[in-house]
Amino acid sequence: MKYKFSDRVSNLKPSAIREIFKYAADPEVISLSAGNPSPEAFPAEAIAKISADVLKNNPISVLQYSVSEGYTPLRNHLMDYMKKEHNTGRDFDDIIITTGAQQIMDLCSKSIVNEGDVVICEAPSFIGSLNTFRSYNAKLVGVKVETDGMSMEDLENALKANPNAKFIYTIPNFQNPSGVTMSIEKRRKMYELAKKYGVLIIEDNPYGDLRYSGEYVPNIKSFDEDGIVIYAGSFSKVISPGMRVAYCICPKPIFQKLVVCKQGNDVHTNIWSQYVCDEFITKYDFNEHLETLRKIYAKKAEYCMSLLDKYCAPAITYNKIDGGLFIWCDLHESIDMPDFCKNAVQNKVCVVPGNAFLTDETEKCQSFRINFSTPTDEQLEKGIKILGKLANSLIK
Amino acid sequence: MKYKFSDRVSNLKPSAIREIFKYAADPEVISLSAGNPSPEAFPAEAIAKISADVLKNNPISVLQYSVSEGYTPLRNHLMDYMKKEHNTGRDFDDIIITTGAQQIMDLCSKSIVNEGDVVICEAPSFIGSLNTFRSYNAKLVGVKVETDGMSMEDLENALKANPNAKFIYTIPNFQNPSGVTMSIEKRRKMYELAKKYGVLIIEDNPYGDLRYSGEYVPNIKSFDEDGIVIYAGSFSKVISPGMRVAYCICPKPIFQKLVVCKQGNDVHTNIWSQYVCDEFITKYDFNEHLETLRKIYAKKAEYCMSLLDKYCAPAITYNKIDGGLFIWCDLHESIDMPDFCKNAVQNKVCVVPGNAFLTDETEKCQSFRINFSTPTDEQLEKGIKILGKLANSLIK
Repeated sequence: MKYKFSDRVSNLKPSAIREIFKYAADPEVISLSAGNPSPEAFPAEAIAKISADVLKNNPISVLQYSVSEGYTPLRNHLMDYMKKEHNTGRDFDDIIITTGAQQIMDLCSKSIVNEGDVVICEAPSFIGSLNTFRSYNAKLVGVKVETDGMSMEDLENALKANPNAKFIYTIPNFQNPSGVTMSIEKRRKMYELAKKYGVLIIEDNPYGDLRYSGEYVPNIKSFDEDGIVIYAGSFSKVISPGMRVAYCICPKPIFQKLVVCKQGNDVHTNIWSQYVCDEFITKYDFNEHLETLRKIYAKKAEYCMSLLDKYCAPAITYNKIDGGLFIWCDLHESIDMPDFCKNAVQNKVCVVPGNAFLTDETEKCQSFRINFSTPTDEQLEKGIKILGKLANSLIK
Repeated sequence: MKYKFSDRVSNLKPSAIREIFKYAADPEVISLSAGNPSPEAFPAEAIAKISADVLKNNPISVLQYSVSEGYTPLRNHLMDYMKKEHNTGRDFDDIIITTGAQQIMDLCSKSIVNEGDVVICEAPSFIGSLNTFRSYNAKLVGVKVETDGMSMEDLENALKANPNAKFIYTIPNFQNPSGVTMSIEKRRKMYELAKKYGVLIIEDNPYGDLRYSGEYVPNIKSFDEDGIVIYAGSFSKVISPGMRVAYCICPKPIFQKLVVCKQGNDVHTNIWSQYVCDEFITKYDFNEHLETLRKIYAKKAEYCMSLLDKYCAPAITYNKIDGGLFIWCDLHESIDMPDFCKNAVQNKVCVVPGNAFLTDETEKCQSFRINFSTPTDEQLEKGIKILGKLANSLIK
């Protein structure tokens, strides 16, 4: 049988990161390529206790079919929490629980983007979202990321040049992969530009709670008086990614489309895990838990940056970060980046080549991404030492 | 803000069944409209025990990110089980774990169907799948269901008339909503026709294990020497639908596309629940559990049919079933079906009007679907008594 696939997937490739995982699966290889939360960050005991309770008290409710929009108490608690803590969500908004934030990108693409429509995104940006947009045959237009977020001049040019742009996709806090946080001024400007050009914003905020230094910057969604921002939040980095529970706060007309699409996508998100997340954020001190996480990640981030300082100059430079899980590293101009990444794998260290995060992967790129949350301290030191030695040996 | 949605969703409506749930939410209304497994069928205690064990022994693995194709031991155990018990799965096949079988329909549509391509399905058929196909702008062509399955003459005519047909969607066992089981002869014939016309078959088998009378009929996938059948299995009816764990056995080239699409859809299925399903089918006696379920459902089905016999003739007739969760009822020709269903709701009984299951919902239909697994015996008796009285009062 010769299989014929749809046009939309015939050119779709597996995520470059997931391909790199094949090398990373070799136990001898130190992987700095993942995006996994630190194992010590999981509230495993609390989850076990809550799970035992809900299975005892509500066995049928947690095992039976549920509604597509999500578990009502969890939706209500999240709306209250996001309103109170982040001024996020208005009366015209509603909230849908999704199977990870990846599904938010899928449902939004499906609902909003016709084939050939434009999605404007940061360059570089999160591979997983870019691939979802690609899978709906969206045309990706990248706008370069500066140290304080997207270039607003380039963004306006992109909006002018692409009247069929449907939304701007942004990760404003500790962006994956660049680590950059968008300034308040740029957030306001982006909001104004979106309004002026009649496009939506998808604000993807998986790392916002993981700020360990610098000042809190309000969500773009907190300015949203016009119903143009779709906010994507997730429990993946703050409770557990294996449970696949995320949430989307957006204007009701969009919410209704997302719910219909979700019915056809997976009916509803695992309801057992929704119960567990709900109990965790209501019966435990969620803000205290976040404080614990910030301490764990601050320690790891600072250690990682100290190792980069110690072993990598001058061949590798990097942007200091205030939160998140990733550090974006720049190679000396005389070093060939893809060559360096291949060499690193041969030296048993895995990083993600920066071009994987571009809208056009064939573009030249001098950067690569490292993750510090997954490896142990020992692995981090050993891995970064190898990277530093290798890079410095390649300087011409 | 005036929202512009994509062409593919602008005409998409919420599932009629899910709309009916709004009435069903009224505690005074007896719902015979759901498709929920019987609450007594959940192995809640075993699940609680397994869950406590895996959270104790493998907390990080069950809470961390996992791979898109699914938990390897579960995939291997399912492949072995399906091969041994159902001769399903060849060397050229692979298996992907999905977030419910609904996601299999989504991933297959996305991978295989271009906008305007044809999907051939039973008329009537499962609303959820039809809506997923519609959401990719597939053109649905319905083939009438006879008492032994799809009309093979009509199927061949549909294949001849639609050279852009991409797959045939069938629920061969205790079909939702008709309750019909396809005969072995028709299964072989469907396989031959699919091969002859170069189209795939999606064999959706959520109820196959719930046979309480009649003889086992082999899966269509068990004939598959040519790699043309995509088999969809699910734990929703035999362990728990709330966990959203299903599996798809299909030829490797299709498997690879499904995995790439799943990465962009929800990255992976809840891994905690995958562990639980794996332990349940390996450490407990799964076949004995299925035997218990069959007893539960046989009792309910027989009771329901006895009530239909007692209260409903001559205004309502029905097809006897050998398994599954649904009974398809036909109204006397002098009764207006939509009118009857509305009247039933006013009398506090909810059923699903049969036209909701057609590829063209505006087509005239004299049938409605009832479910007997969710209501209690008391609710069943009260509900069917009301339906019978109402229908017989409407005969002209």
